[in-house]
Amino acid sequence: MTVFNFSAGPAVLPVPVLLKAQSELLNYQGSGQSVLELSHRSTLFENILQDTEALLRELLQIPDHYHVLFLQGGATLQFSMLPLNLATNQQRVDFIDTGSWSQKAMQDAAAFVKTGIVASSNADNYRSIPAGPIYSDADYLHLTWNNTLEGTTFTDAPQVDVPLVADFSSSILSEPIDVSQFDVIYAGAQKNLGSAGMTLVIIKDELLQRTPDRLGSYLRYDTHAAHHSLYNTPPTYSIYLTKLVLEWIKDQGFDTVVERNHKQSASLYAYLDQSVLFSNHVALPDRSRMNIPFTTGQTDLDKQFLQFAERHHLVNLKGHRSVGGMRASLYNAMPTAGVDALIAILKRFEQGER
Amino acid sequence: MTVFNFSAGPAVLPVPVLLKAQSELLNYQGSGQSVLELSHRSTLFENILQDTEALLRELLQIPDHYHVLFLQGGATLQFSMLPLNLATNQQRVDFIDTGSWSQKAMQDAAAFVKTGIVASSNADNYRSIPAGPIYSDADYLHLTWNNTLEGTTFTDAPQVDVPLVADFSSSILSEPIDVSQFDVIYAGAQKNLGSAGMTLVIIKDELLQRTPDRLGSYLRYDTHAAHHSLYNTPPTYSIYLTKLVLEWIKDQGFDTVVERNHKQSASLYAYLDQSVLFSNHVALPDRSRMNIPFTTGQTDLDKQFLQFAERHHLVNLKGHRSVGGMRASLYNAMPTAGVDALIAILKRFEQGER
Repeated sequence: MTVFNFSAGPAVLPVPVLLKAQSELLNYQGSGQSVLELSHRSTLFENILQDTEALLRELLQIPDHYHVLFLQGGATLQFSMLPLNLATNQQRVDFIDTGSWSQKAMQDAAAFVKTGIVASSNADNYRSIPAGPIYSDADYLHLTWNNTLEGTTFTDAPQVDVPLVADFSSSILSEPIDVSQFDVIYAGAQKNLGSAGMTLVIIKDELLQRTPDRLGSYLRYDTHAAHHSLYNTPPTYSIYLTKLVLEWIKDQGFDTVVERNHKQSASLYAYLDQSVLFSNHVALPDRSRMNIPFTTGQTDLDKQFLQFAERHHLVNLKGHRSVGGMRASLYNAMPTAGVDALIAILKRFEQGER
Repeated sequence: MTVFNFSAGPAVLPVPVLLKAQSELLNYQGSGQSVLELSHRSTLFENILQDTEALLRELLQIPDHYHVLFLQGGATLQFSMLPLNLATNQQRVDFIDTGSWSQKAMQDAAAFVKTGIVASSNADNYRSIPAGPIYSDADYLHLTWNNTLEGTTFTDAPQVDVPLVADFSSSILSEPIDVSQFDVIYAGAQKNLGSAGMTLVIIKDELLQRTPDRLGSYLRYDTHAAHHSLYNTPPTYSIYLTKLVLEWIKDQGFDTVVERNHKQSASLYAYLDQSVLFSNHVALPDRSRMNIPFTTGQTDLDKQFLQFAERHHLVNLKGHRSVGGMRASLYNAMPTAGVDALIAILKRFEQGER
């Protein structure tokens, strides 16, 4: 039975990655130990960590003057660490409000410092990304690049004179990023990078100077930077899985993965746009390639569709509880066969099958 | 080739746990999904989480008026979360100083509040646990139950009138705990509970009231308690592995595991105590059953022994870089055959083999 998993995260992983993890689970490279058992101070694990960072630097073309950190606590812990470390001058952070996750980031920052909204797509119910020039003189400007719930994405980084901090949790490695346009990029691993439990932080070296003298060691970016993410025990297995995912991307070519993402989302949007029954409401230029919400507009019919899809082994298509409807997350590991199967089931449902 | 892994953590896992994880890696209970791919909002994962908590409550006999939380960031993040959440009245925390990890906990608390030492075994170079009555009137008293580097362990909880907070990272589930004697128990999972990336926090309900109004959501115990560790994506795979480890303990009987730990550490101490070459310097009543440091007293000879042991597939016996010598960590998953093999190799080395 082939099941296609459209979860927004934790999400589908590439089958070759799972097979490799399975084959090495009891004995990693002839060591007689599982990766799960490797000391984080062992040469075997240090090599995994170094390889993972090197692959990330290569695929995302991360400049040398950025640190790459492997942390824990998800994007949610970053919502606290960012203001604690970086809002140390003005004690003020600006946000672009693009919906749920940007608001969560702002609410957490507001527990520590002053916050402001410099642009918002609230007026059109978050179906677009705010347009027009943006001004900020806060300690940094925060944005959520891809909005998992709303199905929107930025396509260009706003030009501002303050450091730009971006949550890339649900789109990292789905397309190239010009890292130099950002000062901090962060992402939970459980969508495009691997498994839940690891959070990637890419931070420009000079920002490490901002951390105040008094702050607990785990909460300090400079602690993790100085110790190459080995100040305390990192999430070793999640890092290993990320390495396998990055190798899987590199083996195919990053371009191939990006192109497949374009094609797959385009084919689903094309179906939705001609459908009489289903629709996606996001402004065309701001549509996410990773998270595609859609609905029949009728709660009961949405529920019927979800049941129909599940009977055909298309799972986790339910929209986030705060917005309802359906959502298909098409992360890197979603095969084209999965998108084709979804479109086929949408068609059959629209033609009256139940 | 059987390798015995004496790492202090991440550490050896039970072979049946690894085999089960391997067998389910691509298809968890016929779902067509890997546990690594399960949405944390899915029924399948919620069942894993509930089962894990239920097993912990059963094995450790956790009273109903305690919350069980599955967090991230290791014990090190707890070093910050504890004072941020609990030192909100006096803004002051007391510590029992038993060496390295207790000092790390204190240093992080000192970034936020005042700290004091109410007892210390510094005078005998941390080869014992401080004896005698202890007095504290701080917001809470912190202790490190088992000291991974020094090889010491508490055997009784001190009687104090303030909440007692204990780091059980390297001895949780190696022996019964009277949870009611503590207000907070916390432990990283990568020693006796499973894999790196998950931190267990057992906290008395009434302490959840202490969290201040202004604190980022991830850093608040009350956030995680209110959402049953599902406020944000938890470390799903680490939780699953903990469930497998708990099932493995329950299948044998917790008593059996505890008795095996007693016997294994006793046999290693018995060898060391009669040895002319090797010795352990910890005061007899305070000896850890989990982490047993020993040395020849000569740096070169220690190094030779480590090489000799490694050639015989006994790995990660090197002592922590801050203390040198050797250290054998005998966590629950260390089979008796591993301890026997270590003793045999110690004997052969002592008899002159190199």
